[in-house]
Amino acid sequence: MRKLINAPADVVADALRGLAAAHPSLRVDPVGRTVVRADAPRPGKVALVSGGGSGHEPLHAGFVGHGMLDAAAPGEVFTSPVPDQILAATLAVHGGAGVLHIVKNYSGDVLNFRLAAELAEDEDVEVVSVLVDDDVAVEDGARTAGRRGTGGTLFVEKIAGALAEEGADLERVAAAAREVNERTRSFGVALSPCTVPAAGEPTFRLGEDEIELGIGIHGEPGRERVAAMTAAEIVDAALTAIDADMPVRGAEVLVLVNGMGGTPLIEQYIAYAAAAAWLEGHGATVARRLVGPYVTSLEMAGCMISVCRLTPELTRLWDAPVETPALRWGR
Amino acid sequence: MRKLINAPADVVADALRGLAAAHPSLRVDPVGRTVVRADAPRPGKVALVSGGGSGHEPLHAGFVGHGMLDAAAPGEVFTSPVPDQILAATLAVHGGAGVLHIVKNYSGDVLNFRLAAELAEDEDVEVVSVLVDDDVAVEDGARTAGRRGTGGTLFVEKIAGALAEEGADLERVAAAAREVNERTRSFGVALSPCTVPAAGEPTFRLGEDEIELGIGIHGEPGRERVAAMTAAEIVDAALTAIDADMPVRGAEVLVLVNGMGGTPLIEQYIAYAAAAAWLEGHGATVARRLVGPYVTSLEMAGCMISVCRLTPELTRLWDAPVETPALRWGR
Repeated sequence: MRKLINAPADVVADALRGLAAAHPSLRVDPVGRTVVRADAPRPGKVALVSGGGSGHEPLHAGFVGHGMLDAAAPGEVFTSPVPDQILAATLAVHGGAGVLHIVKNYSGDVLNFRLAAELAEDEDVEVVSVLVDDDVAVEDGARTAGRRGTGGTLFVEKIAGALAEEGADLERVAAAAREVNERTRSFGVALSPCTVPAAGEPTFRLGEDEIELGIGIHGEPGRERVAAMTAAEIVDAALTAIDADMPVRGAEVLVLVNGMGGTPLIEQYIAYAAAAAWLEGHGATVARRLVGPYVTSLEMAGCMISVCRLTPELTRLWDAPVETPALRWGR
Repeated sequence: MRKLINAPADVVADALRGLAAAHPSLRVDPVGRTVVRADAPRPGKVALVSGGGSGHEPLHAGFVGHGMLDAAAPGEVFTSPVPDQILAATLAVHGGAGVLHIVKNYSGDVLNFRLAAELAEDEDVEVVSVLVDDDVAVEDGARTAGRRGTGGTLFVEKIAGALAEEGADLERVAAAAREVNERTRSFGVALSPCTVPAAGEPTFRLGEDEIELGIGIHGEPGRERVAAMTAAEIVDAALTAIDADMPVRGAEVLVLVNGMGGTPLIEQYIAYAAAAAWLEGHGATVARRLVGPYVTSLEMAGCMISVCRLTPELTRLWDAPVETPALRWGR
């Protein structure tokens, strides 16, 4: 196991200490494991809280800041955060206008966010939860009932975050988050597995010259293992699966070509070239795009493609200023 | 070889097509292999041109934009760009105030940039070249006379770019670039090798549980191979080497903790936590910092640390707005 770590048990706390030292815009508790906007709570603003297992960085803590999340609750690597931790993040950012929980659809996350929401409501904090389940690859699995939440989480967090920053109420922010999720599909491909530090062994094995189509972001099984393919063939497989579930013809789309953590940027751009050509060739207009490692799976090699069918309002919210460690732009 | 590519011979052109499709702010020629600011040439502005082998993305093309480079000339993977290509980039951005070539100190780059500068001067374009040689690990090598240019290149491009954007003349911009290089040192560590697509074999081999201290960004040999160490020990080795060459005590420093391409962000933050603690413990003040994969080596696992001793003026220029695909902030 070749990792730049001190000890498997310290991975999350050490990384949070690094995040704290690097970003004065964040208030980080490496022991309680919460990452909060330094200017929280913002009175009168709907607060957005997300979280999940670590190992997907920059998701979620790297998306805490103006125009996106108010707090993140990072669990152990590939392990759900505990309810107390989610509760602490919720109470730290609650500004009187309610809190939106953005929850990727994994059984542990769903359960622990639900418990945290109940505890918050005991303290008179209104919480609405939105599930993200954008991954078309498989239905149900070891970790999930229904579909998994993956790359589309970034779209939900960005767009709902922009609306909350404008002062929209909890109902409207939650509705926008659900709308983005409903209009978004993702599909991932692994070229290599990854190793959870505490396990010390790869989460799965691939034969020489084998790749896995439809991989989950924790290395959960996908649809099939196939012989190595070109970038264009991999992108075709991913977008064909997405398009079969949500036709893209005639749509203006937002596309994320996402590196899984171990795939260099030059290859992500090769995949993006193929994705843009595929989408334009199938009657979609690529109106907005993002290329980079945003929703990762430790050092897994491969990529995930996420597509959102935009509306003018979603485009406007996507373009709104954002200022976080990992996503930053202004107008 | 598990790579997200179409064919080894097409890697650079395909990636440039992706870059072009993703970033309307750039004018990309995938055949001539130049990447130019869409608003170039800027009359009266000193133009900054850099380049070098591909495989280090986002360096250099990802740094083309407002407040940084005017053009980049990407060569084949780990191979210098050719003089005609550098000349084309130079002529495309020349705005009448001269052109600064920022050249990493590798023999092929030095030679080809020199030839391109001579060709440009034949066309009455004034060119000044600045060499970057920030890597303290080794003197001389297969590719280099003197020290190698590595992570510090980002500092040189950002700070010289800010000064050029303000309207400084060629002499002042070149002097600032040299000053940054003189005040910057870097040291890299490899946890795994990388494979050039056209070669199909790793550039070097590491034994089980072995890492290489002082690695070059093309996998050139470093100082020594040692048994696997913790992140804190790796950071200590890197910063001890840097500090021995350029003492940091009493300095305000800018630090880059740079992922080499295959190391996930969570590990880069673990390394940054160790680096910040080390520097503060040795009497330096970390005034500015950057954590991420900015100067990579394909899918190599590991990290490089770069340290620049700031002055108030260099800090001001570092903070100046920048708007490029890979580096973006405003004030």
